[in-house]
Amino acid sequence: MSGRHSKHDLESTRDDDALRDLEKKWTDSPARALRWHKDLDVRGLDCNSAPGYDGDKSDGEELVAAHADELSELQERLFADGRSGGTRSVLLILQGLDTAGKGGIVRHVVGLVDPQGVMHRAFGVPTAEEASHGYLWRIRNALPRPGYIGVFDRSHYEQVLVVRVDGLEPEETWRAHYDEINAFESELAAAGTTIVKVAMFVSKDEQKARLAERLDRPDKYWKYNPGDLKTRARFGDYLDAYQEMLERTSTDVAPWHVVPADKKWFARLAVTELLLGALRALDLGWPPADFDVEEQKTLLAES
Amino acid sequence: MSGRHSKHDLESTRDDDALRDLEKKWTDSPARALRWHKDLDVRGLDCNSAPGYDGDKSDGEELVAAHADELSELQERLFADGRSGGTRSVLLILQGLDTAGKGGIVRHVVGLVDPQGVMHRAFGVPTAEEASHGYLWRIRNALPRPGYIGVFDRSHYEQVLVVRVDGLEPEETWRAHYDEINAFESELAAAGTTIVKVAMFVSKDEQKARLAERLDRPDKYWKYNPGDLKTRARFGDYLDAYQEMLERTSTDVAPWHVVPADKKWFARLAVTELLLGALRALDLGWPPADFDVEEQKTLLAES
Repeated sequence: MSGRHSKHDLESTRDDDALRDLEKKWTDSPARALRWHKDLDVRGLDCNSAPGYDGDKSDGEELVAAHADELSELQERLFADGRSGGTRSVLLILQGLDTAGKGGIVRHVVGLVDPQGVMHRAFGVPTAEEASHGYLWRIRNALPRPGYIGVFDRSHYEQVLVVRVDGLEPEETWRAHYDEINAFESELAAAGTTIVKVAMFVSKDEQKARLAERLDRPDKYWKYNPGDLKTRARFGDYLDAYQEMLERTSTDVAPWHVVPADKKWFARLAVTELLLGALRALDLGWPPADFDVEEQKTLLAES
Repeated sequence: MSGRHSKHDLESTRDDDALRDLEKKWTDSPARALRWHKDLDVRGLDCNSAPGYDGDKSDGEELVAAHADELSELQERLFADGRSGGTRSVLLILQGLDTAGKGGIVRHVVGLVDPQGVMHRAFGVPTAEEASHGYLWRIRNALPRPGYIGVFDRSHYEQVLVVRVDGLEPEETWRAHYDEINAFESELAAAGTTIVKVAMFVSKDEQKARLAERLDRPDKYWKYNPGDLKTRARFGDYLDAYQEMLERTSTDVAPWHVVPADKKWFARLAVTELLLGALRALDLGWPPADFDVEEQKTLLAES
């Protein structure tokens, strides 16, 4: 027995050492390295870079795998907290042009935690019912309840992106959304939601390669839409819109993170670490029993 | 290059052989082995059994892992079909007493597929708004859209289980639900939803052990509710209610499957296989392109 314990302890120590080595490939904290700041102009971003990270693909994949258990446990603590009257939740907002890899983040990062604790929503062109309400109506309806991790694949930010680029609203209308969105998010944060905003950037060349793959593979045709080329033709206008979005809506309570996404492995690593950081910061223990444990043990034994 | 290909082919063949060996541990098709039939009285069920399956825990876990990729690909085909105008969806309905392991199924089986394609809903005591509508209102609101796998943790069947056992409605009212539910499900099936109904059965002893674990581990207190003992005191009444539910609502379009759940690994294997079988039966290919592929390639190249 004690022999097994020692072996287990030895293995744990080795695992801990290996994990520390993997974590050290971050030269700065992921949240700090990726956080948007006023000198960062995404129109000059190297989408193939890995800010704050010194490792390669295999290091990055190993670190995601090594952090999966902690991510999963912290998600469960959040869920338990919500079940026990807590008010905390996490909202991951993903924005990015076509092929930036938002779906891959949901599959590979959000997929690491228990689906019972996730409220996922992809926002497309508003339905007739959605369009009959203000743009925040469908957003409010999809917000994570206490204890949940909400995931928005696109979001209210479309209101200052596609709406701006395609001229769907007059400039004075969409410009007013910046302040409205900041007020909305600050209300959310005050009510207990940690907002993790991630803008993913794919280069124009990499986007071409990814769209070409969809046209080359019959199992990917369904992901292709001729409209993607219309959006692609406005690539520069979208970057202008993204840049102003970052400038106007990266706030202390809900800062933006800029994730270069030409390396899929890096984007996945980055979002894993941002989500993990948000959950760690909640610093949640397990909820105490709201019943008399010994009494329940006795009653159970008799049952 | 050709050397690598041969090696890959050899490995594939070995993998295929290994998979076939694992699959052969099923002595009957999972759907047939687990499907409720009129001679099956759950009051005499061996909850520690593994009907139709000859393997052990490690075989079962290996088979789940080996089937994960196929499950995931078939889920993506279903999703692609839904995006391309298809009407098919899958609805997994999980019923079972406390500690039967419904949550574990969601975490470990549903967690194998892309969260983007899953609509999960746990039904608890109806909220005030829910209670103000008929019992199918909240169910209809949570049905999977085309292309999705819906997962119900508890469901409209509570209306003939807890409602019956706790006497929340007069007998003539809850008895009428059997036919209503059959009509409802047959409407769903006709509209394109494959319904996979799973009733999980834990023995009274195993339930005691699982509840005791929740009282022994502070990280599990939040899963314990003193009300669980009230339900446990009616264990026999619940089995009566389950038996009649099976007799009255196991139909050709929506048959019940009975899953003994004292072995968690078997319950997870069983539901993985039932879900896989349902997806295989849809026999979906990838949707064809609804645009001119060559034309789009040219336009993309010029963009």
